[in-house]
Amino acid sequence: MSTTLITGGRVITATRDSVEDILIEDGRIARLGDLGDFPADRVVDASGKLVIPGGIDPHTHMDTPAGDTFISDDFYTGTVAAAVGGTTTIIDFPIQEKGDDPRVSLEEWFGKSEGKAAIDWAFHQIIADLPPAYLPSLGALIDEGVSSFKLFMAYPNAWMLDDGAIFSALQWTSDNGGLIMLHCENGPAIEVLIQQAIAAGHTEPRFHAATRPSIAEGEATSRAIALAEIARVPVYVVHMSAAEALSAVGLARGRGLPVYAETCPQYLLLSEDKLASPGFQGAKYVCSPPLRDPSHHDKLWEGLAAGNLQVVSTDHAPFHYKDQKQMGRGDFTKIPNGMPGVEWRVSLLYNFGVRENRISLNRWVEITSTNAAKLFGIYPQKGEIAPGSDGDVVIFDPDRPQTLSAETQMTNCDYNPYEGWTLQGAPDTVLVRGEPVVSDGQFVGRAGMGRFIKRRPAETLATDLIS
Amino acid sequence: MSTTLITGGRVITATRDSVEDILIEDGRIARLGDLGDFPADRVVDASGKLVIPGGIDPHTHMDTPAGDTFISDDFYTGTVAAAVGGTTTIIDFPIQEKGDDPRVSLEEWFGKSEGKAAIDWAFHQIIADLPPAYLPSLGALIDEGVSSFKLFMAYPNAWMLDDGAIFSALQWTSDNGGLIMLHCENGPAIEVLIQQAIAAGHTEPRFHAATRPSIAEGEATSRAIALAEIARVPVYVVHMSAAEALSAVGLARGRGLPVYAETCPQYLLLSEDKLASPGFQGAKYVCSPPLRDPSHHDKLWEGLAAGNLQVVSTDHAPFHYKDQKQMGRGDFTKIPNGMPGVEWRVSLLYNFGVRENRISLNRWVEITSTNAAKLFGIYPQKGEIAPGSDGDVVIFDPDRPQTLSAETQMTNCDYNPYEGWTLQGAPDTVLVRGEPVVSDGQFVGRAGMGRFIKRRPAETLATDLIS
Amino acid sequence: MSTTLITGGRVITATRDSVEDILIEDGRIARLGDLGDFPADRVVDASGKLVIPGGIDPHTHMDTPAGDTFISDDFYTGTVAAAVGGTTTIIDFPIQEKGDDPRVSLEEWFGKSEGKAAIDWAFHQIIADLPPAYLPSLGALIDEGVSSFKLFMAYPNAWMLDDGAIFSALQWTSDNGGLIMLHCENGPAIEVLIQQAIAAGHTEPRFHAATRPSIAEGEATSRAIALAEIARVPVYVVHMSAAEALSAVGLARGRGLPVYAETCPQYLLLSEDKLASPGFQGAKYVCSPPLRDPSHHDKLWEGLAAGNLQVVSTDHAPFHYKDQKQMGRGDFTKIPNGMPGVEWRVSLLYNFGVRENRISLNRWVEITSTNAAKLFGIYPQKGEIAPGSDGDVVIFDPDRPQTLSAETQMTNCDYNPYEGWTLQGAPDTVLVRGEPVVSDGQFVGRAGMGRFIKRRPAETLATDLIS
Amino acid sequence: MSTTLITGGRVITATRDSVEDILIEDGRIARLGDLGDFPADRVVDASGKLVIPGGIDPHTHMDTPAGDTFISDDFYTGTVAAAVGGTTTIIDFPIQEKGDDPRVSLEEWFGKSEGKAAIDWAFHQIIADLPPAYLPSLGALIDEGVSSFKLFMAYPNAWMLDDGAIFSALQWTSDNGGLIMLHCENGPAIEVLIQQAIAAGHTEPRFHAATRPSIAEGEATSRAIALAEIARVPVYVVHMSAAEALSAVGLARGRGLPVYAETCPQYLLLSEDKLASPGFQGAKYVCSPPLRDPSHHDKLWEGLAAGNLQVVSTDHAPFHYKDQKQMGRGDFTKIPNGMPGVEWRVSLLYNFGVRENRISLNRWVEITSTNAAKLFGIYPQKGEIAPGSDGDVVIFDPDRPQTLSAETQMTNCDYNPYEGWTLQGAPDTVLVRGEPVVSDGQFVGRAGMGRFIKRRPAETLATDLIS
Repeated sequence: MSTTLITGGRVITATRDSVEDILIEDGRIARLGDLGDFPADRVVDASGKLVIPGGIDPHTHMDTPAGDTFISDDFYTGTVAAAVGGTTTIIDFPIQEKGDDPRVSLEEWFGKSEGKAAIDWAFHQIIADLPPAYLPSLGALIDEGVSSFKLFMAYPNAWMLDDGAIFSALQWTSDNGGLIMLHCENGPAIEVLIQQAIAAGHTEPRFHAATRPSIAEGEATSRAIALAEIARVPVYVVHMSAAEALSAVGLARGRGLPVYAETCPQYLLLSEDKLASPGFQGAKYVCSPPLRDPSHHDKLWEGLAAGNLQVVSTDHAPFHYKDQKQMGRGDFTKIPNGMPGVEWRVSLLYNFGVRENRISLNRWVEITSTNAAKLFGIYPQKGEIAPGSDGDVVIFDPDRPQTLSAETQMTNCDYNPYEGWTLQGAPDTVLVRGEPVVSDGQFVGRAGMGRFIKRRPAETLATDLIS
Repeated sequence: MSTTLITGGRVITATRDSVEDILIEDGRIARLGDLGDFPADRVVDASGKLVIPGGIDPHTHMDTPAGDTFISDDFYTGTVAAAVGGTTTIIDFPIQEKGDDPRVSLEEWFGKSEGKAAIDWAFHQIIADLPPAYLPSLGALIDEGVSSFKLFMAYPNAWMLDDGAIFSALQWTSDNGGLIMLHCENGPAIEVLIQQAIAAGHTEPRFHAATRPSIAEGEATSRAIALAEIARVPVYVVHMSAAEALSAVGLARGRGLPVYAETCPQYLLLSEDKLASPGFQGAKYVCSPPLRDPSHHDKLWEGLAAGNLQVVSTDHAPFHYKDQKQMGRGDFTKIPNGMPGVEWRVSLLYNFGVRENRISLNRWVEITSTNAAKLFGIYPQKGEIAPGSDGDVVIFDPDRPQTLSAETQMTNCDYNPYEGWTLQGAPDTVLVRGEPVVSDGQFVGRAGMGRFIKRRPAETLATDLIS
Repeated sequence: MSTTLITGGRVITATRDSVEDILIEDGRIARLGDLGDFPADRVVDASGKLVIPGGIDPHTHMDTPAGDTFISDDFYTGTVAAAVGGTTTIIDFPIQEKGDDPRVSLEEWFGKSEGKAAIDWAFHQIIADLPPAYLPSLGALIDEGVSSFKLFMAYPNAWMLDDGAIFSALQWTSDNGGLIMLHCENGPAIEVLIQQAIAAGHTEPRFHAATRPSIAEGEATSRAIALAEIARVPVYVVHMSAAEALSAVGLARGRGLPVYAETCPQYLLLSEDKLASPGFQGAKYVCSPPLRDPSHHDKLWEGLAAGNLQVVSTDHAPFHYKDQKQMGRGDFTKIPNGMPGVEWRVSLLYNFGVRENRISLNRWVEITSTNAAKLFGIYPQKGEIAPGSDGDVVIFDPDRPQTLSAETQMTNCDYNPYEGWTLQGAPDTVLVRGEPVVSDGQFVGRAGMGRFIKRRPAETLATDLIS
Repeated sequence: MSTTLITGGRVITATRDSVEDILIEDGRIARLGDLGDFPADRVVDASGKLVIPGGIDPHTHMDTPAGDTFISDDFYTGTVAAAVGGTTTIIDFPIQEKGDDPRVSLEEWFGKSEGKAAIDWAFHQIIADLPPAYLPSLGALIDEGVSSFKLFMAYPNAWMLDDGAIFSALQWTSDNGGLIMLHCENGPAIEVLIQQAIAAGHTEPRFHAATRPSIAEGEATSRAIALAEIARVPVYVVHMSAAEALSAVGLARGRGLPVYAETCPQYLLLSEDKLASPGFQGAKYVCSPPLRDPSHHDKLWEGLAAGNLQVVSTDHAPFHYKDQKQMGRGDFTKIPNGMPGVEWRVSLLYNFGVRENRISLNRWVEITSTNAAKLFGIYPQKGEIAPGSDGDVVIFDPDRPQTLSAETQMTNCDYNPYEGWTLQGAPDTVLVRGEPVVSDGQFVGRAGMGRFIKRRPAETLATDLIS
């Protein structure tokens, strides 16, 4: 039974801020407090550093097919990137093929991830086809620890479910547990705008943003909330980008409805003018929903600070610019959607959130780790520093600078959307269940160190914990 | 250095729920975890019980003048009542006399409380007169640990400040720290209705409620929020009773404004028909804002569950029915306003909240203890079970029944507003800084055991912790 | 050139209320004022009576297929019923068959109506299929005077268009004129509830209402507004029944959006408990959206008074109880949807609106005539008493009682949803373009007296006239 | 009995738009229609021109004391200015002195106006002191035709009433008729900001705007609405300048509350940067509420088009720059508040409203004439072209240019806030009760031609006419 003692660090959780020692025994936190004299196999001096629960990124896409190509990160490269960025758990997405039972894709994703992941991981299941016959499979998925389901209101020619199927799914979770996550954009209206753009010869990357208006995101968000209200069940809005959507969530929460939402660093920090970058460079910034004008950034930061947004994920979905994004030259609809992010989330939020006084240290931990753990049924195993929790700990050096660059990043992608940005603050040491995966900022783990985490269905009442 | 070890209990904090041992050394929590074999001076077996941070009631009135009479509890009887009810800290209210520097009353209240309180206590300062010359006194109060200020939008003939003074106070806290608490009812409009009622011979207790419409509470709440928005500062709404007020707070929070509010058990559980009780019995239920019709109860419960209300206090303000409430026979305006509550808050919220599935165990702790600690600048000293926190711990037996009755209560009041109600769940053992004040449900402490707690001014960013 | 002089009546328009004489020459109003001595071919003494513009019912269904049966009124019986009820213009709905150009059905409806209608009529076109290739047909329809298009968000197995087609239509009207009318219910979610009800053996008429929740109407109304906002164009919500939908319209109008809505007498006066009438009688009250609980009635009346609802139509769609409604015995989904109404709209609104002080006399005229004329491009030809307007005039006797009954009604239907109700106030004389169609309450016109009215596309700016 | 026939004009009312002849007999409109051959004493050819009801400006201040000075227009110069601008009725404001019965000032204002006014006029009564004893005087005022009462939520050192008095007044009108008009700004909060500005040496005109934040106007508007809602009575918000206030009104109207509001041309067309004009020129633009930043202009225009604002008045309150505005050099609080406007309202709204496609021709008439008549109890005598209405008619030449300038204006003021602006469209001929007061753009009337108009108390139900 190996033991690790972390001494003298400033422990920051979602709620605490105090100097405490931490004893990890056999992968779990065993004791907290003034333990300075306690014998341990390994002692890590965290003096002058922040000691936080390992980050949880509940929205990544590794090794995932996209049209004729695949996300450029697999479960090894992607989790190495996550680890050096201070994230010790990701939640990824098997994608159901239409016509298949959703469990088919889950098996496939187990194959992609087992033996490869360097950190712990879990799955949400993407549901792209939900005839009534498949509803019982949702229960089987929950039994396997896959207790949340992502559905699309966008992409009518691919994964979109109609409101009937979405409502059925919400109703089912109301009766059986599990949490529905929704990509909220009005796909059919957007499709009309896309066809008009293409017909008009507007094929450059910037028309990707122009054809996905923010009101269409706000509308779908309102609709998702209404369907959940009829079904009397919580709902989770993924990757929110638009002030109109935040307003819908704020109104619902102000009325007391259990509605939750995440945003991503790119929606807080990058704006739609990136899509009009010279040449075809704008393709690097094509993701859905699209980047918005900067007025939305301030609203989203306010939403994070005020609690109307609860989580920052990344929607990590890297594609190489050279041979993948190029597929959309001459037709923005063919640009693979997505950009890398898992590696920089915790640091970007520290630098632009905490250091720029938009959020507190505690809120930083809450939105990058604890709230995701609570909402997705792995709290307090993950997202907390408390007796019994997994020994997933990040020692974050607030004074360590880092410069973001494709040259140095671990993510397998030939560009960095934040190329050249210099941040203050970086992970120094990262432990997964007590084992070091990052030391002095360098990856020291190995493929297969990670474990699949079975998640409980989030209890409805648990949701009153989330701000 | 005396040590206490609490073993085997189910530790419930605002966020955690796990079986942990707790070591208290010298009044503070020193270690947490699997400490079963640790030597300690005193060992308390908490197996099968809930172990929670001591309750914090941030709204009590002990030994306080009210017209020609005084609140019937002093700082001894009132804190004994609090202790047996699972509350280990109260925050009481010195009342500034018009024309006096507010510090004058603070000195008076120190005299009332020191050597008497059986549990820890702190003060908010009531500001009834705020010429610009007194603004610096707010800073002096903060220096003494009195970092929040209650102002009245009601009672135009007594404590009401006009919007200019309220705005000045909000502005001052925006620049200097401190938190403004507001009694939100439109006093002048209510005064018109009162005078009309009296002129019409409507003098019975029920006209107390009839002359204080819920829209008048909603209006004042909206106004408080607007003045705070101009001043760019948080604001705290005390003893909310009305759905309209909750709606105003929900809208503001949905827009991302830092607005906080408390309600009280009587507004969750008792309705205005009590004021029409036979004879003059309705006077027992006269408090301000008044009890409302039951449709408001559901909304307030939803607000607590959803996070739009953050705190449950009591506005504890007992008067004997026999010789005090009687002063208002024939004229409801002369009934002393208030009712007892400090003794039953934690248990009422457990019984009607947790057991009736309106709130989770964690939320119960959060709204009866942790959030008040955070908002009023004593977290994590109070409201938390973590290394370094005060050893204020309640061992709550979820199976212990209690029947509420004036016969058996510790509160010095000749009636009980919940007379005869039987609750499931009661405090078994209560420690204040590691010292037992309640054992097997009985008070075992003594006058003067409590300490005055200096509070920090709540930092604005800290407010993003509160749901 | 025949002339008619109406003397001494109290002329009520949407705005005026004064005693005026009216001279009609050659079918049009030629002069107004003090014309008592003017020679005319026919003089009608209106002393003591209200003289109002002929009613306009912009939502009727005559001679229309419904599954294996037809609406029981044709353009003759239905317009006779309208006439005796004080309505001189109806706007009916050709229904496009899927796969057909919408003009095909228009031709068919001309065949149904020409030579039969006893009053003037116009058409909105129902669009049930809108591939891009059919968009130009909307322009052709406008050229023929059919300048509004009704689309369905309900009935996924029949007429529902997806949001893309709806958005395309809205966009098209934004560029080309015309007004989109929407049946706002979330069809797919409702379909799920219907299938569940049927599967559970809940086949009685009352499950028609239970499976169409009011939030589903509110959601669709919000969505319609959002799609119109993206397209920057007005939108018209048909037959609103739900408070949630009214709230969506009120919020949009409060933000300044050009959103319009109609309700129907059945949604103001009849409640869902009718669907639980003994035996199969509930089938008489099956219409969509369904009758709601009475709390919705008050909200709709307030919406009419306050201007958030602008029009009262009937959605007149009678089926005989004996051989038509029976088709749904044992399966509420097979009950033909609809009920009669065109005959009683003006009188019901006078009796329950004006006489019960919910709306003014002017507002009565506005919502039963003038606003429909403005919104649908036939004002001031219709809906007004002014020089140049058509001589469509109703002399309404406020003291004339009428008892509603299937026995005496002109509508071809074997039941009356208001059977036995006695109203105060009834039309005495009705002129269409100066020609009497009703005299002393009796129909005196003939088939073919009516003319098809070509409508202009409503100008966007004209919409600022509508309250 | 003199007769005037206006032939061939395009008659525009709030609802109509048609070529009609108008016969005026004995000051009233007698007949409408095709009257070309009718004999008349005077025939005016209006071919090619717009014929509209005379403008009504329901918010002017003539010959009114302001500190140590007086408004520079008296009832002669001010009504001449109104007349040449197409306004045939003004409603002015007697100002009650504190301690006086409000009727005292009414008598004084009769003295100021009788024999001087060149057009018709009426009065609202300003109530600056409302002890219960004065409430019956409101009834006496209504009996004299003064049926609306303006109260101030601003100016705590002068005319402000507290919420109790405002609520009493609203309640009184709920029981007795009459309409309360409110100046909605939070006076006490503004006073704090003013004192701070002065103390900081911020004495220039621009600090007039900086100390009156738009949220303070929004707050007071919300409060006014809440007090009216408790009293169950309509309320009218004067001279709205702020988007926040419009939003409050929009929300209330969206909920169905009878809330009405006016704005003024300066709030639609001039922005706060005018107050920072070089030297002391900014003083010319000091009025309350202050000019706002241009983002508010668009919202107010949208509010006018959409019906959330019903009236455009001027708050006409001219002071000479040379010897009156100068009183505030070195202290913006001493600048007399107000600017001229009565002369240009109708034309400004035509030019910037109708010609720039923000409002329709009908809406132009509605907001500059008809709605004021309805709301203030003089419709259809004023604000309409219909049999029986007064012969107040403006023949407006849409092609006639005019250049605004202090050199040429009739208003007695040494500056013009719109100096040098050129408008398209101007009044050509103006009749007051059939008598010409303006011919070919020149004043041809005389002092004393105007009559005092007794107004009815606006009926609550009448308010459902107003959009």
